[in-house]
Amino acid sequence: MYQIDLNCDLGESFGVYQLGIDEEILQSITSANIACGFHAGDPSVMRKTVRIALKNGVRVGAHPGLPDLIGFGRRNLSISPQEAYDMVIYQIGALYGFLKAEGERMQHVKPHGALYNMAANDEALAEAIAEAVYKVDPQLILFGLAGSELVHAGEKAGLQTAQEVFADRTYQHDGSLTPRSQPDALIHDDEQAVSQVVRMVKENKVLSSQGTDVTVKVNTVCIHGDGLKALAFARKIRGVLEASEITVKAIGG
Amino acid sequence: MYQIDLNCDLGESFGVYQLGIDEEILQSITSANIACGFHAGDPSVMRKTVRIALKNGVRVGAHPGLPDLIGFGRRNLSISPQEAYDMVIYQIGALYGFLKAEGERMQHVKPHGALYNMAANDEALAEAIAEAVYKVDPQLILFGLAGSELVHAGEKAGLQTAQEVFADRTYQHDGSLTPRSQPDALIHDDEQAVSQVVRMVKENKVLSSQGTDVTVKVNTVCIHGDGLKALAFARKIRGVLEASEITVKAIGG
Amino acid sequence: MYQIDLNCDLGESFGVYQLGIDEEILQSITSANIACGFHAGDPSVMRKTVRIALKNGVRVGAHPGLPDLIGFGRRNLSISPQEAYDMVIYQIGALYGFLKAEGERMQHVKPHGALYNMAANDEALAEAIAEAVYKVDPQLILFGLAGSELVHAGEKAGLQTAQEVFADRTYQHDGSLTPRSQPDALIHDDEQAVSQVVRMVKENKVLSSQGTDVTVKVNTVCIHGDGLKALAFARKIRGVLEASEITVKAIGG
Amino acid sequence: MYQIDLNCDLGESFGVYQLGIDEEILQSITSANIACGFHAGDPSVMRKTVRIALKNGVRVGAHPGLPDLIGFGRRNLSISPQEAYDMVIYQIGALYGFLKAEGERMQHVKPHGALYNMAANDEALAEAIAEAVYKVDPQLILFGLAGSELVHAGEKAGLQTAQEVFADRTYQHDGSLTPRSQPDALIHDDEQAVSQVVRMVKENKVLSSQGTDVTVKVNTVCIHGDGLKALAFARKIRGVLEASEITVKAIGG
Repeated sequence: MYQIDLNCDLGESFGVYQLGIDEEILQSITSANIACGFHAGDPSVMRKTVRIALKNGVRVGAHPGLPDLIGFGRRNLSISPQEAYDMVIYQIGALYGFLKAEGERMQHVKPHGALYNMAANDEALAEAIAEAVYKVDPQLILFGLAGSELVHAGEKAGLQTAQEVFADRTYQHDGSLTPRSQPDALIHDDEQAVSQVVRMVKENKVLSSQGTDVTVKVNTVCIHGDGLKALAFARKIRGVLEASEITVKAIGG
Repeated sequence: MYQIDLNCDLGESFGVYQLGIDEEILQSITSANIACGFHAGDPSVMRKTVRIALKNGVRVGAHPGLPDLIGFGRRNLSISPQEAYDMVIYQIGALYGFLKAEGERMQHVKPHGALYNMAANDEALAEAIAEAVYKVDPQLILFGLAGSELVHAGEKAGLQTAQEVFADRTYQHDGSLTPRSQPDALIHDDEQAVSQVVRMVKENKVLSSQGTDVTVKVNTVCIHGDGLKALAFARKIRGVLEASEITVKAIGG
Repeated sequence: MYQIDLNCDLGESFGVYQLGIDEEILQSITSANIACGFHAGDPSVMRKTVRIALKNGVRVGAHPGLPDLIGFGRRNLSISPQEAYDMVIYQIGALYGFLKAEGERMQHVKPHGALYNMAANDEALAEAIAEAVYKVDPQLILFGLAGSELVHAGEKAGLQTAQEVFADRTYQHDGSLTPRSQPDALIHDDEQAVSQVVRMVKENKVLSSQGTDVTVKVNTVCIHGDGLKALAFARKIRGVLEASEITVKAIGG
Repeated sequence: MYQIDLNCDLGESFGVYQLGIDEEILQSITSANIACGFHAGDPSVMRKTVRIALKNGVRVGAHPGLPDLIGFGRRNLSISPQEAYDMVIYQIGALYGFLKAEGERMQHVKPHGALYNMAANDEALAEAIAEAVYKVDPQLILFGLAGSELVHAGEKAGLQTAQEVFADRTYQHDGSLTPRSQPDALIHDDEQAVSQVVRMVKENKVLSSQGTDVTVKVNTVCIHGDGLKALAFARKIRGVLEASEITVKAIGG
């Protein structure tokens, strides 16, 4: 009856630098967002990550970011829509090369970090990204913050979209994420985080910080991939979802 | 009866930095090797260059290089075959994205600078590059120095290859290029350069520095794309080739 | 009686990419702002530029920018004050190395592009930059937009500052630069541009776009360094200033 | 009577990527080689590493490397002596900025990875590096592989040099390191590694792989800084050296 996709950012190592525990986390998720060399990742890391994702039956997507390796793509950069279009095509293409080399298709595209956040609110940027995705391959699914400009732009462009929620974030009465500057932005209790997700999937509702219920659409849940705590949570959320009669399955099938 | 491809390295600008006179040179050539962001080029330059190449009816290929922007990819870097495989797939893929966005196919791949030169003599590196090209798309044509390890590796991998000659270089009695360290490495006289190419195409022969005729296969001729002198030469060689009943045509048709 | 410094951004070439006509422009200016490898410039360009500046008797300053080579440091990046402090020290130090190697002192520091503009209005960023300059060498002179937060921060930190004006920009009645988005932001007439500077130096006044006179302090005038038009203007403004009994002299003596 | 310096490569983190356990290792060593942003390190990491080194009373040196972050500066790159000179000055200067900001002096310079290895055997490269160090500050001490071209070049340039040995490497009868391609290149037994160092310091002798004693000069011993095993070894070698009446002290005093 109910179905949900679990996604995680992977392939964030770079050269000698190791980040994340990709092989372990892959056993709990259904969609992998793979860094494309701008904010993290390098060609060799991309090849390895594509291969282990496919080996684990996990669908692969591009995770394009801003060209800011020092800042891990988390710092806003005032790029033009045209520049966004160009850097998204470049990065999708680069990952596409590794998928073609393995004889597999790309499932989705999810912008990373500051690019994701800027595109959630900036219509022109969102449209440029959606157009880039559509132009490279109209079968690609565009992942964006639930209810964001990026999701709207994707729909307008003719793409299938995936409304994304974050398991460990609280929501405001208007459906937006509580800003990280607020003390209650994060949910630290795993049980509570999982319950919130189950309710979002089954009832399309979330209890806001203001105490009111808010309607939220959700197609995919983002979980973290770094550290043993993240791994334990990944296993827990997958287990609870399945025990709650929710099929955990890649959005692209 | 006779047919030849004329190729040129394009898309070598970067950010505010302009290099080459791509629009002008495109009117004389049939295949464009487009830089992919490692030794030159950036996503916006790649998009623009792909578009003007297609607009001019010129076939497009990837021109992957070493990750050395300061050195323009001309300095040898001791990479492993696996690293070569990975960086070639990444760069082909990146350019592939822009071609897909324009609804066009990629014709060929030609490694750049030090990667091209290293692959001419290093069998393991040549095989890794050929495998990368084949895995991404077995229809791609691999350009390499005529008679080089790279061409051999391409044939062994099952790729169509293009034997490349340089209009302005002299040859040794064993068919190798005269090293640039030799005083007579370059042909400075345009007439002589063009005549040498015409003879290579029609007779598969070139007069070596030692005064003996050497057999050389040639499918494509590389010409330069920077400066007015290069442009004048491009126009001249195209004109003379056509006047010599040699069809100037992209190798991929 | 009257004295002014003429500064220009130099050393903006990178690898094979040439930008600017540094040797020619050096004959007209008194202070050179040398790019430090983040938005432009590389170690070899820095060495060469330091040497030709010193050879021409021009004082040298660091021109630190944002780590954005593709965007030439012109795109705002949301860095923290601590990150600004760190990247400014790094870049001053790097140029300092080349000056020490030549047995010379550094005169000044002028942030570049988006870093300069952000520091003109952002007090915390301005203070971080001023502290970085002071900590490396309290004798350094900090160049900033006349009347900006950066100049205030420099004074507060105990640095000598230089109020900078732009020869080809118009001013608003509150003393701010007319935004580039306005049609009359730029002065295209060389005579008018030079006259405005002469008046700013001699009377500390400028006629605003609103038709009122505004008081402006000026210690240094920024001129462009790319292209023959820029070179002609550099020669013209230097000539007119000297003919107007204004001594053109490096601010640091 | 006997004295030795213990050095370690530090500050090799980059952005979000953590490498090494610098704070712990600093308690056992006397000289820190700090990465300068080319092969590892970034401005913020440099500032932090300089501060914790100084706080622990450890002398600071620059650890310039090749511009190859993906390869961690370990892949040979065919740079010219002039390029080596320029990139070494740039990197020394950058670190110098952070030391000046802290009011401290730099003690030494030790090239990193492939730059270190190439300079051990390439006289022209070694001389360019030595000249760069001398020009920036003739008081700097140049660290190089014991008996290498780099040490010779440093002496010829008028620099104090430090002959460096590696605790965990074996030696050949001619005094060179056993190449890593040989099965016995590394000493895996900590006791044996420490004993070899003690003998090198006290007797200037090392037992070669061929079973003969070889004379070796040693001023500083390089130890690793990554992982708990490295930390345990650092503590052990320091303890044994001191118990063997060898003063462990920074080479610059």
